[in-house]
Amino acid sequence: MADKIPVIFEFSAHSTGKMRNEIDVWMAQPPNEEEWQIATDEGDFHGGDGTAPPPLALFAAAVAACMMTQIRGFSKRMGIPIRGVQVTGRTSWKLHPEDRVYSTEPDRFELDFDIDSDEPRERIEELMRQAQKGCFIDQTLQRQNAVVHRLRVGDDVVEIERDPESTPPSVDG
Amino acid sequence: MADKIPVIFEFSAHSTGKMRNEIDVWMAQPPNEEEWQIATDEGDFHGGDGTAPPPLALFAAAVAACMMTQIRGFSKRMGIPIRGVQVTGRTSWKLHPEDRVYSTEPDRFELDFDIDSDEPRERIEELMRQAQKGCFIDQTLQRQNAVVHRLRVGDDVVEIERDPESTPPSVDG
Repeated sequence: MADKIPVIFEFSAHSTGKMRNEIDVWMAQPPNEEEWQIATDEGDFHGGDGTAPPPLALFAAAVAACMMTQIRGFSKRMGIPIRGVQVTGRTSWKLHPEDRVYSTEPDRFELDFDIDSDEPRERIEELMRQAQKGCFIDQTLQRQNAVVHRLRVGDDVVEIERDPESTPPSVDG
Repeated sequence: MADKIPVIFEFSAHSTGKMRNEIDVWMAQPPNEEEWQIATDEGDFHGGDGTAPPPLALFAAAVAACMMTQIRGFSKRMGIPIRGVQVTGRTSWKLHPEDRVYSTEPDRFELDFDIDSDEPRERIEELMRQAQKGCFIDQTLQRQNAVVHRLRVGDDVVEIERDPESTPPSVDG
């Protein structure tokens, strides 16, 4: 079996304005010269200036685009010609008000694909299933992940452990 | 206990160019008038024209910005004044080459926070822990999610079930 190849994105971000964040992102592995400047903000209602999309809009776009990219990339690799992909969908969460703050949990993510192709239905379904396996973000959403948060405190760095009771239960995909 | 509030983003996306995707995203619940146009592309190496960040760069930016936004929002709600937040980090995956295609799995996501504040360390750690509970994306990464993929086939719509063997195993957060 071939070796596993690491795919690593690194980032450096700072807050600015009222609620705006500016994030530089680059690909560390496999090495890539490009760097992307991405920003988020919140609207008036959440105390921001609306200068950029909110983080959840970027997330929703990434969820849709990752599968779309995988479908087009694999269509060439698998010899299943397609002319294009359209997707509509929704990402939904629930917010639980708690005293002054709130906690959140994911609900359900739904994507409806429309693939423009003359290939038989079985081939398009095969392409979709292969794209699911190849899509980094879809695979990430299929499991509980290791997300490490560290906090600089003076010259120290401490890991911030999550409250185990705050983790929402998994569902059967 | 207060009612749960749905937070829903909807999107409509289409492929264009060689590997570019254009995604319109809007907030369906609570209703919001704004709509954001977001694009992704791939570099030369992956057959794209490099006109926009790749989906994984948007994803990494969203992971960082969601916690940063939550920290600033909750700092006001909890009365823990901060001047700003900086974050560096990495999102890493593994790619397994398989014949003409490949499968992927998440590896580890690491974020290092530097919070500019005169508050005592304990209060900043409390703010971080509360932000973890409130961060939609962090909570999403903590569990296996329900992600539904449907495909239009003529006048029909079929759900594309995932290959159960392709789901990467969960890890202990």
